[in-house]
Amino acid sequence: MIKKLAIFGVGLIGGSLALALKRAGHCELIVGCDTNVERLQYAVELKVIDQFTVDPSEAVVDADMVVLAVPMLAMESVLQSISKDLADDVVLTDVGSCKASVVAAASRVFDGMPPRFVPAHPIAGREKSGVESSLVDLFAAHKVILTPVQTTDPNAIAAVSQMWEATGAQVKKLGIEQHDLVLAATSHLPHVLAYSIVDTIAETDYVEQIFQFAAGGFRDFSRIASSDPVMWRDICLENKDAILDVLQKFQSNLKELELAITKSDGNALMNSFVNAKTIRDANVMKHRVETE
Amino acid sequence: MIKKLAIFGVGLIGGSLALALKRAGHCELIVGCDTNVERLQYAVELKVIDQFTVDPSEAVVDADMVVLAVPMLAMESVLQSISKDLADDVVLTDVGSCKASVVAAASRVFDGMPPRFVPAHPIAGREKSGVESSLVDLFAAHKVILTPVQTTDPNAIAAVSQMWEATGAQVKKLGIEQHDLVLAATSHLPHVLAYSIVDTIAETDYVEQIFQFAAGGFRDFSRIASSDPVMWRDICLENKDAILDVLQKFQSNLKELELAITKSDGNALMNSFVNAKTIRDANVMKHRVETE
Repeated sequence: MIKKLAIFGVGLIGGSLALALKRAGHCELIVGCDTNVERLQYAVELKVIDQFTVDPSEAVVDADMVVLAVPMLAMESVLQSISKDLADDVVLTDVGSCKASVVAAASRVFDGMPPRFVPAHPIAGREKSGVESSLVDLFAAHKVILTPVQTTDPNAIAAVSQMWEATGAQVKKLGIEQHDLVLAATSHLPHVLAYSIVDTIAETDYVEQIFQFAAGGFRDFSRIASSDPVMWRDICLENKDAILDVLQKFQSNLKELELAITKSDGNALMNSFVNAKTIRDANVMKHRVETE
Repeated sequence: MIKKLAIFGVGLIGGSLALALKRAGHCELIVGCDTNVERLQYAVELKVIDQFTVDPSEAVVDADMVVLAVPMLAMESVLQSISKDLADDVVLTDVGSCKASVVAAASRVFDGMPPRFVPAHPIAGREKSGVESSLVDLFAAHKVILTPVQTTDPNAIAAVSQMWEATGAQVKKLGIEQHDLVLAATSHLPHVLAYSIVDTIAETDYVEQIFQFAAGGFRDFSRIASSDPVMWRDICLENKDAILDVLQKFQSNLKELELAITKSDGNALMNSFVNAKTIRDANVMKHRVETE
């Protein structure tokens, strides 16, 4: 049970966490802290949070759990703004999509990684953003990855795990570097490609027809191009190395496919497509990935 | 009403068309023709078709409608195999994903485009293939694009339109070249990218974790990498020019994004992402594209 939860950044993720914890009865009081008063008032009206403040110091008074749900580039300044006000026993965690950069930011602010800061990343989202898009079930049956370091307090890890389990999520652990590589491939690269494909289409002469006759393939791709641009700009900047690594591998694979199409090399195309289908189908079966 | 419908290629699309027409009572008799006797028997057992034959000439006897639902590269040889047996009043149509190549194949076989051949393309599909994946509602509320030429018989166009409307689809017309460009962008490119992304991931050291922690973005992308490789090889070969055109535009756009990430140019990333989101959201609203 959390007595007072302070959520920094009351958007889709912060809002959905608040809703899920309230429903689970896992929290007595939820205080939201953000920069925009009107949005915070709206969050209270929507009954997503109980109270709000724009003063970071006030938000963390008596809090036993502090969750950072702000865009990646805002993490460090928020940590800075509360660094002097955190009680010794407060548990701190975040929901950022890149873990190395959050850990680096926290280490800079606190002169070393605080033992009660548990880096975390819920693998859930929507293409709609803002507190009004919050869903009480956003995390249900989704994974939350914790990336604690060697010095992280086991009690803090347990508290963060329990909080996420109360939302219906499954908690897993990964190394920081591994998390950033895996997410670059499964989430960051697809978003970059989705933005790029829509931008490409926007420059053609037939953008109207493309949306009019949009097939399933395009619908799925373009959906994620509707995600929050600030969030994805920040992710591209903060997980730069891992994203560039997988992006370069992808471009080189795509060049090979382009060459096969150019040469009308049906065998090369078949090899590539059969390989992809085999791997995808085998792993979907194995990991019971939701497909629809 | 169709008295006898002959379907060449009893897979996902041919099978779903048969199911929908039967339910609509739009057809008295449906005969399937394919190369694999066991698959044809299975289609009869599943009550997808009424009868089958592996003899193309026999399939078209007394047929008033002939639908070609074979892979793109098989279109010409099927047309060749029935060219001498078609009655003067039979209506011929296809479901191919590329229209220029089908029209070219038909023109070669018949020494000019037959007036009663109506090129068509239902914009519907699944990542699962085979007659057992057929769905009676596969085409409901989906678009079917007809690409008739100047000499196409209006009565034949009407017959094909009525057939597709009976499945619940909306029938639209487009020019051949425009169809191939639009589909290259909305369907063919996304499939090539999906195969490529899964192939790229397969070569990394963390393929297991990628599927284990697959996020929504990856789930959507990888789903279409499970589509029928033969179908997609054929599409890449048959719509080569249009696919290469949009693929090159895409690669050049992606190079710009890569450069922006490399230089940590947040403004360039924001411009690109906001542009994509704006265009996508505006067009989704306008064309009521299904998004979930």
